[in-house]
Amino acid sequence: MSKLEELDIVSNNILILKKFYTNDEWKNKLDSLIDRIIKAKKIFIFGVGRSGYIGRCFAMRLMHLGFKSYFVGETTTPSYEKDDLLILISGSGRTESVLTVAKKAKNINNNIIAIVCECGNVVEFADLTIPLEVKKSKYLPMGTTFEETALIFLDLVIAEIMKRLNLDESEIIKRHCNLL
Amino acid sequence: MSKLEELDIVSNNILILKKFYTNDEWKNKLDSLIDRIIKAKKIFIFGVGRSGYIGRCFAMRLMHLGFKSYFVGETTTPSYEKDDLLILISGSGRTESVLTVAKKAKNINNNIIAIVCECGNVVEFADLTIPLEVKKSKYLPMGTTFEETALIFLDLVIAEIMKRLNLDESEIIKRHCNLL
Amino acid sequence: MSKLEELDIVSNNILILKKFYTNDEWKNKLDSLIDRIIKAKKIFIFGVGRSGYIGRCFAMRLMHLGFKSYFVGETTTPSYEKDDLLILISGSGRTESVLTVAKKAKNINNNIIAIVCECGNVVEFADLTIPLEVKKSKYLPMGTTFEETALIFLDLVIAEIMKRLNLDESEIIKRHCNLL
Amino acid sequence: MSKLEELDIVSNNILILKKFYTNDEWKNKLDSLIDRIIKAKKIFIFGVGRSGYIGRCFAMRLMHLGFKSYFVGETTTPSYEKDDLLILISGSGRTESVLTVAKKAKNINNNIIAIVCECGNVVEFADLTIPLEVKKSKYLPMGTTFEETALIFLDLVIAEIMKRLNLDESEIIKRHCNLL
Repeated sequence: MSKLEELDIVSNNILILKKFYTNDEWKNKLDSLIDRIIKAKKIFIFGVGRSGYIGRCFAMRLMHLGFKSYFVGETTTPSYEKDDLLILISGSGRTESVLTVAKKAKNINNNIIAIVCECGNVVEFADLTIPLEVKKSKYLPMGTTFEETALIFLDLVIAEIMKRLNLDESEIIKRHCNLL
Repeated sequence: MSKLEELDIVSNNILILKKFYTNDEWKNKLDSLIDRIIKAKKIFIFGVGRSGYIGRCFAMRLMHLGFKSYFVGETTTPSYEKDDLLILISGSGRTESVLTVAKKAKNINNNIIAIVCECGNVVEFADLTIPLEVKKSKYLPMGTTFEETALIFLDLVIAEIMKRLNLDESEIIKRHCNLL
Repeated sequence: MSKLEELDIVSNNILILKKFYTNDEWKNKLDSLIDRIIKAKKIFIFGVGRSGYIGRCFAMRLMHLGFKSYFVGETTTPSYEKDDLLILISGSGRTESVLTVAKKAKNINNNIIAIVCECGNVVEFADLTIPLEVKKSKYLPMGTTFEETALIFLDLVIAEIMKRLNLDESEIIKRHCNLL
Repeated sequence: MSKLEELDIVSNNILILKKFYTNDEWKNKLDSLIDRIIKAKKIFIFGVGRSGYIGRCFAMRLMHLGFKSYFVGETTTPSYEKDDLLILISGSGRTESVLTVAKKAKNINNNIIAIVCECGNVVEFADLTIPLEVKKSKYLPMGTTFEETALIFLDLVIAEIMKRLNLDESEIIKRHCNLL
């Protein structure tokens, strides 16, 4: 077992993301995700544990670009309404509190995106499912590689949004936290 | 020592809040606080530990009433700008990270409110200081009674804002978290 | 309507807490809550929105006194096990994500306490229910007075625990956050 | 500009991490980081914004492996003591509130690790600095690539700790959040 086994696995997982640029089926998924984000009135993001922190990284960057983005359950997160978008992040696709949020949102609209590794029952509520194909290993356990790949995938989504809307770093600097 | 000693202390601390309705000096402080909240473009709230959670309760209720309120450091909290208001909550008035936030905000504008128990050096940055007079005891230690009284004081501020702007519970229900 | 209507309502809500010291049925509930806290291996606390912040205030104070307390879902909160205690805080008693946590804990043990205002279906999972009787008003809407009364009730629980275990403020100072 | 420019940059940033396995100077930095983690009584982690969420991912995984890890400022995070370790994560190395934490910890011990991109003044407080060399781009702005690379670097640190202490996924499952 090479000393670099984990690094190789992580690198390969990231190279698999090329399909979002080279394969039509996956290009359409990326485009649909970006369309929904740009069209949405408010964007709600949710996940639990490490997936939740990856989701917060994405929500923060959307806010930096001027979107009305929120992480579900935070202090000033308002109510979810019919013109809004919900993005759920769950490696297993079965996290119960993610399902609770999905069920409640489904009563309001059909604009739910699930970013998963395994297609657990959250995908039944999703109007668009984006499964991230990742390899794990003994020392990259549980959702580790899903969370890494999800962070990078969502940063690439940010990159594509910036290109589409012709935004640059100055937008981020303008809205970046300046009190801590 | 009566079994009810702590309850009596807490009750008295709350009755002291009457001065915000009956004493001109304290009525003016309450009015000035409310004026600044209503005039502010965005309202930033910050505190550490239990004071931070009391601040979040207030920030959430302001959001429910339609204000653009934020807790400093949360996921989608944007940058602080010249037309904004900063409300700092610190029992000691000396919490270092609260001072850091105060210093940075002071470089941007002069619209900082400090809600304190002891007038530590955060008040040097404050444009309005609201000291909450509270009694402590052996079994109501540290900031316990300050945090309780601050929660109730800030809920009374919400009540006065609702009266002034003729808002009722329907505003809160409209914006209340509906996904958890 | 007197200017002090809200303050009177809040004060009366707090005086109602006397029954935990003077009425046997309520004294037993308080004692049972304290017994379970002292006997528990780990103490998990959960609530959503303002109730969640009140729960965090309580969890923090328990940690200060040397208990292994956690708020469900935070970064280093471990798994819930059979010798642990779960305290749920929900004004309505019907918050869905609180029910999710209750159901999951019920599969592990029967040591669930519900602190509520209205006895929604979370009480079906509770092994001890502590309803806090509070009066609301137009300008003390939703869970406002429940959350205030719950904060003070839980601070009184802390006071009773300190008396029973002969703890004082030095315990709190020893463990109090010293890096912010 | 190839469609895959961002993906190539991210992949290269991750390949640069090979030096922690192949270059003695960087192997020693990794070993020193791991030694300090294994020897520490409690491990405190801190960062602001996206760096803070990356730090929380790491703190959570350390808890899963049985370490006493905490994120500074969370509900049940205790006080920092002389036998503890502080790991600071800041892309710029100049985040003021990170400096506040560093200064306070420096009064307690000399066991501070800074994980940075640029060597801002936080490194003056650090007993071990680990600069992560990353390339940015117009559409991978600010700390984006630092945060991605830091997440993966810290997951590789977890992998090395698991190998050293002969731990596997069962440890993580045992302590993994089971109530949400």
